[in-house]
Amino acid sequence: MTVGYRVAVVGATGLVGETLLQVLRERQFPVSELVLLASERSEGARVAFGGRDHVVKRCRPGSFRGCDFAFFCVGAAVSRKLVPQAVREGAVVIDKSDGFRMDAQVPLVVPEVNPEALNHHRGIVASPNCSTIQLVMVLAPLMRRAGLERVTVATYQSVSGAGREAVSELETQVKDWAGGRELRTKRFPEQIAFNLLPHIGRVSPDGHCGEEVKLMRETRKILGLPDLPISATTVRVPVFVGHAQAVAVEMSKPLDPDEARALLARAPGLAVWDPPDAARYPTPRAAAGRDEILVGRIRKDPASPKGLLLWTCNDNLRKGAATNAVQIAEEMIRRGIS
Amino acid sequence: MTVGYRVAVVGATGLVGETLLQVLRERQFPVSELVLLASERSEGARVAFGGRDHVVKRCRPGSFRGCDFAFFCVGAAVSRKLVPQAVREGAVVIDKSDGFRMDAQVPLVVPEVNPEALNHHRGIVASPNCSTIQLVMVLAPLMRRAGLERVTVATYQSVSGAGREAVSELETQVKDWAGGRELRTKRFPEQIAFNLLPHIGRVSPDGHCGEEVKLMRETRKILGLPDLPISATTVRVPVFVGHAQAVAVEMSKPLDPDEARALLARAPGLAVWDPPDAARYPTPRAAAGRDEILVGRIRKDPASPKGLLLWTCNDNLRKGAATNAVQIAEEMIRRGIS
Repeated sequence: MTVGYRVAVVGATGLVGETLLQVLRERQFPVSELVLLASERSEGARVAFGGRDHVVKRCRPGSFRGCDFAFFCVGAAVSRKLVPQAVREGAVVIDKSDGFRMDAQVPLVVPEVNPEALNHHRGIVASPNCSTIQLVMVLAPLMRRAGLERVTVATYQSVSGAGREAVSELETQVKDWAGGRELRTKRFPEQIAFNLLPHIGRVSPDGHCGEEVKLMRETRKILGLPDLPISATTVRVPVFVGHAQAVAVEMSKPLDPDEARALLARAPGLAVWDPPDAARYPTPRAAAGRDEILVGRIRKDPASPKGLLLWTCNDNLRKGAATNAVQIAEEMIRRGIS
Repeated sequence: MTVGYRVAVVGATGLVGETLLQVLRERQFPVSELVLLASERSEGARVAFGGRDHVVKRCRPGSFRGCDFAFFCVGAAVSRKLVPQAVREGAVVIDKSDGFRMDAQVPLVVPEVNPEALNHHRGIVASPNCSTIQLVMVLAPLMRRAGLERVTVATYQSVSGAGREAVSELETQVKDWAGGRELRTKRFPEQIAFNLLPHIGRVSPDGHCGEEVKLMRETRKILGLPDLPISATTVRVPVFVGHAQAVAVEMSKPLDPDEARALLARAPGLAVWDPPDAARYPTPRAAAGRDEILVGRIRKDPASPKGLLLWTCNDNLRKGAATNAVQIAEEMIRRGIS
């Protein structure tokens, strides 16, 4: 007898949904039945999975009935609307959106960091923001070894984090530029090709943009450090896939760069690319298509006696989104709490 | 009688040299005679200036004789070789390279920040690294008002900072990508199109790259704070012109974001673009072609009670290089010390 799970994917035709199906395939997640849901626009599309075509449907009452897991790969507005239905209809929801992450009842989980939070789920588990996942994966081993006093991060985020339209906007702008045509903007407020957009999400009255607030709050929640001093500047860059972060971290005890390298190299999900001559260093291009978070440029922070500086790159669609969601389901199965 | 200066430009056909001639024109710098010097490769090229064509020559003994100012817009190796000759032959040298910046005898000057350093020159004045200029222009007013305790900066640097070949490499890679051709690398160690290269210059055994060391050392020298705790991560991004910086600055006294906005808006050479709704924010594209350093995203640093976060953009070829050099000459004329 083959054990299998009935799995729904909401937002199956989006960038993250598509990557999620790819990750389910690669990891041979035991799917006995697949329900693909999306917006009206994608209704009727056909997606190959497990040797046969699946037709994408619109979400209707009963869509989640009989499902074990429902992966939500949509924005917060759609998640807020449909997640309660999925829970009512009996599915365990793994939600990639921002809709429930800061809800005290909802575990916000990176399986390598805080899997124990899953034990108290009430039907919804939130997967963090891509930038948060990338950051806590590196902070957690440092925290366990040396304690965290303060974190400052500047991000370099690819357009795929803003969805398929954003990817095609960069593509179109670059092709128009190469063809000598005028560049048009639509998804982004200003030209993204050969440019940098220094905020992601709305800027609040205190000056932080949405992405920065997520990064700070979610990191504190996942690490269980509600008062962690942390600040972030989040920037969109003209890269298709792969986010990068320049991180300054201050610890309670000093940690030598060599010790940090060894510690991070042993941590699950990380790959340290940091030869002394910088002959091989993390780039978004190198991170794209991988699940590991690449860590390099590890060095003492000259501005802080107990500080380290480092540079990380991650595939924002995989570990930053789809892979983390699938790992959450795998961990729940392992713990027998799905 | 028209007062004028005999001006030599070394590296006249490079990106910075070309921009310098443009800036001399725009600012109506009183040039009575122009001597254009460059490498063998550019010998014989013709450059229009002041209504007539000038022929680019190779540097020979006597090339600087009779010159009041010699602007060096070349790399450190060439500057180290030719600057002593120019000084011997009687010119005041304004050197854009890294060759003499940390020499205790050589003033390292941003005219808005430390013009008084010019008074002690001995024939050579160094103009700082582009990233240093961008940083100190913003730090100086904050330092004067509230003292500096610590600075952490992450940079986003355009390819024009690496010269004309680097610009053409990004151009070619993007056009090859648009045309479906394979991408080749030459000037950069890895693909720069749609990618990020997380070090600029060689990485030293302690893990910092050349650009980071310059940024730290030069900032301390210019601000007269030899022990300032400062750290930097410098990154090359696929942008043609315009560098950006995410800056976290900790001061001795807290400074409200509104006070900081007002203070920086009054500082010469800065333009604050920071409406509460972020409707207009600094981008490299907006900074390109301007002399002002654009400052935005000014907010309290949630990780530091006396800290501010800010985001700046600057044209690295203009204020980051050519304009600053010309301003140095203007300031020396004003002080009667040329």
